[in-house]
Amino acid sequence: MSLIDVQALPDDRGVALDAVGVEGLRYPLLLGDGQGGKRDTAATMTMTVDLAADVKGAHLSRFVEVLHAWRDQLDASSMLLMADDLRQRMGSRRATVTASFVYFLERQAPATGATSFMDYPCAVTATIGPDCNVVQLRTEVAVTSVCPCSKAISDYGAHNQRGRVTIDVDLEDPGSDLWFDELINVAERCGSSPLYALLKRTDERYVTMAAYEHPVFVEDMARNVVTALRDDPRITRGTVQVVNDESIHNHAAFTRVSWPTQDGS
Amino acid sequence: MSLIDVQALPDDRGVALDAVGVEGLRYPLLLGDGQGGKRDTAATMTMTVDLAADVKGAHLSRFVEVLHAWRDQLDASSMLLMADDLRQRMGSRRATVTASFVYFLERQAPATGATSFMDYPCAVTATIGPDCNVVQLRTEVAVTSVCPCSKAISDYGAHNQRGRVTIDVDLEDPGSDLWFDELINVAERCGSSPLYALLKRTDERYVTMAAYEHPVFVEDMARNVVTALRDDPRITRGTVQVVNDESIHNHAAFTRVSWPTQDGS
Amino acid sequence: MSLIDVQALPDDRGVALDAVGVEGLRYPLLLGDGQGGKRDTAATMTMTVDLAADVKGAHLSRFVEVLHAWRDQLDASSMLLMADDLRQRMGSRRATVTASFVYFLERQAPATGATSFMDYPCAVTATIGPDCNVVQLRTEVAVTSVCPCSKAISDYGAHNQRGRVTIDVDLEDPGSDLWFDELINVAERCGSSPLYALLKRTDERYVTMAAYEHPVFVEDMARNVVTALRDDPRITRGTVQVVNDESIHNHAAFTRVSWPTQDGS
Amino acid sequence: MSLIDVQALPDDRGVALDAVGVEGLRYPLLLGDGQGGKRDTAATMTMTVDLAADVKGAHLSRFVEVLHAWRDQLDASSMLLMADDLRQRMGSRRATVTASFVYFLERQAPATGATSFMDYPCAVTATIGPDCNVVQLRTEVAVTSVCPCSKAISDYGAHNQRGRVTIDVDLEDPGSDLWFDELINVAERCGSSPLYALLKRTDERYVTMAAYEHPVFVEDMARNVVTALRDDPRITRGTVQVVNDESIHNHAAFTRVSWPTQDGS
Repeated sequence: MSLIDVQALPDDRGVALDAVGVEGLRYPLLLGDGQGGKRDTAATMTMTVDLAADVKGAHLSRFVEVLHAWRDQLDASSMLLMADDLRQRMGSRRATVTASFVYFLERQAPATGATSFMDYPCAVTATIGPDCNVVQLRTEVAVTSVCPCSKAISDYGAHNQRGRVTIDVDLEDPGSDLWFDELINVAERCGSSPLYALLKRTDERYVTMAAYEHPVFVEDMARNVVTALRDDPRITRGTVQVVNDESIHNHAAFTRVSWPTQDGS
Repeated sequence: MSLIDVQALPDDRGVALDAVGVEGLRYPLLLGDGQGGKRDTAATMTMTVDLAADVKGAHLSRFVEVLHAWRDQLDASSMLLMADDLRQRMGSRRATVTASFVYFLERQAPATGATSFMDYPCAVTATIGPDCNVVQLRTEVAVTSVCPCSKAISDYGAHNQRGRVTIDVDLEDPGSDLWFDELINVAERCGSSPLYALLKRTDERYVTMAAYEHPVFVEDMARNVVTALRDDPRITRGTVQVVNDESIHNHAAFTRVSWPTQDGS
Repeated sequence: MSLIDVQALPDDRGVALDAVGVEGLRYPLLLGDGQGGKRDTAATMTMTVDLAADVKGAHLSRFVEVLHAWRDQLDASSMLLMADDLRQRMGSRRATVTASFVYFLERQAPATGATSFMDYPCAVTATIGPDCNVVQLRTEVAVTSVCPCSKAISDYGAHNQRGRVTIDVDLEDPGSDLWFDELINVAERCGSSPLYALLKRTDERYVTMAAYEHPVFVEDMARNVVTALRDDPRITRGTVQVVNDESIHNHAAFTRVSWPTQDGS
Repeated sequence: MSLIDVQALPDDRGVALDAVGVEGLRYPLLLGDGQGGKRDTAATMTMTVDLAADVKGAHLSRFVEVLHAWRDQLDASSMLLMADDLRQRMGSRRATVTASFVYFLERQAPATGATSFMDYPCAVTATIGPDCNVVQLRTEVAVTSVCPCSKAISDYGAHNQRGRVTIDVDLEDPGSDLWFDELINVAERCGSSPLYALLKRTDERYVTMAAYEHPVFVEDMARNVVTALRDDPRITRGTVQVVNDESIHNHAAFTRVSWPTQDGS
């Protein structure tokens, strides 16, 4: 049976589209762990291409075919190859692929050394086009922050809370050895203390006092991340956001900064 | 034009349905404020009826017609009348209507008296049927809690965080004078400190120190709410849940308790 | 260093708590796949125990220790053993453990046989206590539904939409061979058509026409599930909910039914 | 009592911040309705300023004070005045304020004229700085779309679903008469049919058949919006996104386009 190809029909509205594709596609991937191993990962995918002004639509089933073909070998480098494969199969100039997932690291509690896992929402985005060819890493790290103002103005105590530090970086080279673990470590050092799934009583004492000794605003956390990463030659640009779920308010404190700045600093 | 009434067709599978209706319907309501006034409110509605085993379907457009007719006069009593109107129009034995919305109260900061609004997600549910005729109030109140263990075992500091106290109560009488304001006050007194949208520096000092002086676990918060409400003759039964976004973990502490207990205590 | 055990202190408010524990804990698990294999799974955990009226608090770190010890061997039977381990370690009468995760199944497109994965949010809950000892399975399955009314009253076309069928069942025996795959199949047969991640053009034609030939209301979908499962001896009780994201409204159609009914039917 | 001003302390890390402020602040506003009236609105606010490299922190309580002072008179023009007030109080170069809320319009069903309300998530953003002075409107409109491919290749039926059309525009003039109502109308005309909260049977027939006669891809919807708005002199730039919750898949189709294009078309 021959079925009409509606997507391939011409379009005369004269509107090229920046991005057409699929979003919210949950898929099981084998993701490289940055140390040569692979992990089963339940990822959420966004995949898009640009569409010329004179074509009615994109064939969305091809996005899933491309993903299915690459699904057991994804890392920063192969994400870019997958984006290029997608770009070619769609006859597009540009393609972008994002895989988002929860990444886990085993952590030791600071006093007892008790072992547990911490969870970090992460993402890899690969974009390929006539003017770009780039892999971006994103990681979101929960930390605790003690308020420097509250500590300084109070005779005892200090409000503190959970915050989320989100780091986005463009890799200078898709084959870079920069991976999530390193970015997560930077984020965890920028706050008053890292978080742990498991803390025994002596650990809780340790974390409480260590955090109290290192109060930070959202501004401090963002600046600490920028200071740690802005001179890293493996990173061409970055953005840090910090959202702090203030424990004395029902709203969040927020900050954002990108580098390099427009004047090159 | 005569159109077939598909919903009214018979069904032979022998399965009566506990609830059929609409969910996630956002609608502008005029909601009584418990003091004789009315407020414009953007509510999210759930409305259901039961369905007999021998009928194929419910006419869902009638749910919206009933809501539209009652929308400018809703309070605890009229929600029950609306549920009864729905029950009758649908030819059902039982109907349940829930309106969920954000409720605001003006608050004064504890030291400067500076004024701002706090937000409280609230809901009213009315159920009418052969064996019940009840209005329920729900309110969710954000508070701060200082951890008693962290304080006791540390030389200085104590981890604290934002928590959410959810109170559900069945009213003994739909015309009761119990309204959200009173439940919110109970919830705000159960934690280490209420939250405020606006705190100047002397207020922040006040809240920091007051919270440090009143450490509570989630267990304490739930018990404080039960102690305040379990003997209130306007309430026939209740449930309290507390979810604490622990600032030293990336997960929450949780507790739940209902009263009266099965042995009547 | 000897640190005070604040949780073990007495409490005199006379309020026993139904549930105390952790919520929203994301953890990497090895989950049995029902066929003897195991899968790496990013689960979200809720774990609670009851707390006697005369004890101030529960030691929440033990919940994570128990989970960490069992994390590489979870299935329906071992979830119950883990709940019992938790109950004993906490000195409680009752413990409940829920693991929620996305489950994937490989599917073939109906005409071309093209292969892709479908995603199904699933959960296992194990509860152990003096009066119960039960494992529950939950699965949430997205399907498409064509509206029988819209089809019957229109000369052409019929509105259709994505819906979510949620099935909860209590297993008669924790060692039962009933697993998610079977419940998912029941849910996918109850609607107008299953969904697929990948459909080529002849598949899309197949699904469009098959769905148009099998119109269903949310009421029909729920009844189809009940009819398929209510006589299954491996299931002691169940609940079905269907939420349909109506394509002609901005709200959902909803239904819910549990079995057995109170009169035993 | 004199309390130290920690935020005003110097900072030597040499990192200016692009944005510091509050996020997720729910507040009751009186919002202009574009026709000279005002509506009580439960808004969610984001408010930020930039922060110089040599200052430690921003005084976040001032954000709430500014909002509280302006809260009973907000429209496109006064949002910009509020942003300027914030900028001056903070001693910053740039300030951005966003108010997000649900906007309702009364709609008549297409055959019976039955009246109900439709809900539209909307937002106003005002930004003021040395190089900009702009008000942006955002509206998100749910519509239904019938798939042109599914219709063309099938003997009967066609899959359709709910989609969300998001339009962002920069106003040429903050005092412009362009308001949400007009953007919502454009979005509702771009799909296969508008949605309604209330449709009687003859309305459902009307909508089903009208939608079947006007099939559209996400690409078509985006292009229809661009065609309607790109020559409007009141708009200096715009972006359209369409997310379609495909009824035959468990993922969404997505498109995005901005105008004017870089080559000025």
